[in-house]
Amino acid sequence: AVRLRVREALGAREPAGEVKVQGWVRSVRSQKEVLFLHINDGSCLENLQVVADPSLENRDLTFGSAVEVQGKLVKSPHRMQNMELKAETIRVVGPCDTWSFPLKLKKRHPLEYVRQFPHLRCRSNTLGSLLRIRSEATAAIHSFFQENGYVHIHTPIITSNDCEGAGELFQIETSNEAKESAEKTHFFNVPAFLTVSGQLHLEVMAGAFTHVFTFGPTFRAENSQSRRHLAEFYMVEAELSFTESLQDIMQVMEDLFKTATNTVLSKCPRDVELFHKYIAPAQKPENFLVIPFIVILKTFFFSCRISYNEAVEILKQASQTFTFKPEWGCDLQTEHEKYLVKHCGEVPVFVINYPYDLKPFYMRDNEDGPQHTVAAVDLLVPGIGELCGGSLREERLPFLESRLQRLGLADAYQWYLDLRKFGSVPHGGFGMGFERYLQYILGVDNIKDVIPFPRFSHSCLL
Amino acid sequence: AVRLRVREALGAREPAGEVKVQGWVRSVRSQKEVLFLHINDGSCLENLQVVADPSLENRDLTFGSAVEVQGKLVKSPHRMQNMELKAETIRVVGPCDTWSFPLKLKKRHPLEYVRQFPHLRCRSNTLGSLLRIRSEATAAIHSFFQENGYVHIHTPIITSNDCEGAGELFQIETSNEAKESAEKTHFFNVPAFLTVSGQLHLEVMAGAFTHVFTFGPTFRAENSQSRRHLAEFYMVEAELSFTESLQDIMQVMEDLFKTATNTVLSKCPRDVELFHKYIAPAQKPENFLVIPFIVILKTFFFSCRISYNEAVEILKQASQTFTFKPEWGCDLQTEHEKYLVKHCGEVPVFVINYPYDLKPFYMRDNEDGPQHTVAAVDLLVPGIGELCGGSLREERLPFLESRLQRLGLADAYQWYLDLRKFGSVPHGGFGMGFERYLQYILGVDNIKDVIPFPRFSHSCLL
Repeated sequence: AVRLRVREALGAREPAGEVKVQGWVRSVRSQKEVLFLHINDGSCLENLQVVADPSLENRDLTFGSAVEVQGKLVKSPHRMQNMELKAETIRVVGPCDTWSFPLKLKKRHPLEYVRQFPHLRCRSNTLGSLLRIRSEATAAIHSFFQENGYVHIHTPIITSNDCEGAGELFQIETSNEAKESAEKTHFFNVPAFLTVSGQLHLEVMAGAFTHVFTFGPTFRAENSQSRRHLAEFYMVEAELSFTESLQDIMQVMEDLFKTATNTVLSKCPRDVELFHKYIAPAQKPENFLVIPFIVILKTFFFSCRISYNEAVEILKQASQTFTFKPEWGCDLQTEHEKYLVKHCGEVPVFVINYPYDLKPFYMRDNEDGPQHTVAAVDLLVPGIGELCGGSLREERLPFLESRLQRLGLADAYQWYLDLRKFGSVPHGGFGMGFERYLQYILGVDNIKDVIPFPRFSHSCLL
Repeated sequence: AVRLRVREALGAREPAGEVKVQGWVRSVRSQKEVLFLHINDGSCLENLQVVADPSLENRDLTFGSAVEVQGKLVKSPHRMQNMELKAETIRVVGPCDTWSFPLKLKKRHPLEYVRQFPHLRCRSNTLGSLLRIRSEATAAIHSFFQENGYVHIHTPIITSNDCEGAGELFQIETSNEAKESAEKTHFFNVPAFLTVSGQLHLEVMAGAFTHVFTFGPTFRAENSQSRRHLAEFYMVEAELSFTESLQDIMQVMEDLFKTATNTVLSKCPRDVELFHKYIAPAQKPENFLVIPFIVILKTFFFSCRISYNEAVEILKQASQTFTFKPEWGCDLQTEHEKYLVKHCGEVPVFVINYPYDLKPFYMRDNEDGPQHTVAAVDLLVPGIGELCGGSLREERLPFLESRLQRLGLADAYQWYLDLRKFGSVPHGGFGMGFERYLQYILGVDNIKDVIPFPRFSHSCLL
């Protein structure tokens, strides 16, 4: 018998003689004349219907059990499906203790419920679809960069940089050290941390390759239970050399977003539909579905581009009262970001040129005034807030040197200054939060539901 | 002027009017009548030759400087290159202090030398080629799995599993905690570690998807300065459901290896050639180049498959004296692996069915005897030793439960036992060390030279 995946069986053009399908039972319906099974093997959202003689039923053939079915693939009389499997033999490979199995037959479990079972939730329809989409999106992002001539770089996870000012860091010790005294020598001789961004390491590479990218885990030890933050999350980061304008950076953000999203929509239409139908509207009807997604994909993002200065003016003139009063020189808060996105018509909005004193040392001085800014850009999207952040980097040695000196960081970043001594070029780049991207395109409220194994304060299951 | 990358300029079919090329100067040769430059931008190993009037020379136009050249792309009179650029303007974008720049004009620096400059070594030919190859291999591995219907899973980096027995672990604390007392509450409430393998998490997913893979960083806190070990390295791991034979696992290892290697050879022939010509033979002439690579790619790996029992017999009958006497029940040492590979003719060798007591709890009991084994497989390759390791996993609840109980781990692995209670299926998988793979196909002696930012005991630069 030819082994077929469910996806292959459902998509078959012609009936087929002896085939074998393996998977997990999603429903059992026993009638007097006929036994119906629905089998899923993760290759797609849809189940394969198995039609069998009732004599093939057995005690272990329950929801959640693993089975191997042999039989004939035939045209289905049902309008909703192309093919079904007429079973000749059904073998229960692994039974399922349905009584203690936390997933129940034909039930759409809430995301918060299945989150309690990190080792079993992938067997629910919603997480199954999420993981297929996540996999396709990952592949699409790799392809996008590869096809545009970017070199993929594995930037390090463990780093000795500790002063980028990106919030709380996780520190690493060997497990023995941690148990003993903190005075002991470090494994790496120096204190070592989990990376918060691959940017500085990508900048190293941008001194040899004009286009580089990375796509890996990053970490923040923030004590936050927010629906937008994780302690471990994935970032897509790119760095471009010989780039003198923020426009170039924004163009790549936009191209990346559109290419990845088009791929996901065309590769997993049914999986995306599940989210748009059952997950997104229930949680936030005001969200992006109001603007059908296809419109956003066709929109030229740049149509919604404002400067930080303009953003502050818009906020000051708003009739709404904010918890944090908008003021030039202060960070945009979530409430501000929301308002700006609404103001622009619930579409993605680029905000550019942020106050010099708000931003990290590596961002390029715009040499303007009296309101001194750097060439930074954030991409805000409906329902999420910041999706991408980027900037031109300060490539001019004197500017960078004096800024690092004022911050007392010149010694620690001697290597970074070196990059400006030896063939420095104007360059810039950005990072996109991968989980936020998934939240946005799928309308998922809580970031814990778009990653296989969420890590956040007080929780590290499995 | 149209902006061209060096790779595009060199590959152009036709001369072109106004073009612009940006990159870094790899050589300057000034003659009375003409100025020659070689420009590299990381898009390929080859440089673009720029021909200019000597009047365009300037003090900053040195080795290592960044330049933008405008001019006409013309057919080159030289046999070795297709096109060259007749410069009309040359602008030095960023000068290079050649005196303090550690890379020198026209010098092939040894790998140990450039390793001292992790922020600059990507500008050497060798590391440039390595990073392009690494990027192509990464893409090829993703494509291989995606095209074969595997779902990509981001298995977690931070994990609370601490008892897999894979050697020393790195432990994680927030940086404040690390500074204070070890008695403080943990950020995650439980001790948390850097992952040593994504296998157990992939097994979770193999309960919903029949084919899954991951490709990410893994960590060992081993105090080793070996040329084959890093504290942070990359692993490709795959897990297959409904698999009852090691042969299936070995077949995937072999297909992965061949597909990835064929892609690298066809996408980066010049980069690979650099290694085979200048790096590999100098360091280990006895290595895989003796068996031309193409032969290995055509070889059916299974032709070299031996059991652990056979391996021990071969070692016992060897005329060679080993530091560690070969004995049934003991781990194969590097010297043993080397001998076995040589014995089989310096080709990849699968060794299967290892002693039960040597291997971790999750491997499937072969129920044989008196020499009790599990269904494990290692792939040994010339010059490297173990490249891949895999096994069938114990899917039978009673076997797994009693083994975990004997080890005192049943409580910690309740979730893992759950996977066997709810639709358990025979399954198996393997991991391949990505850096060892690169070492093997390129003939690179030291693992530190095949990763962008090596981390090992006493060293975590940048």
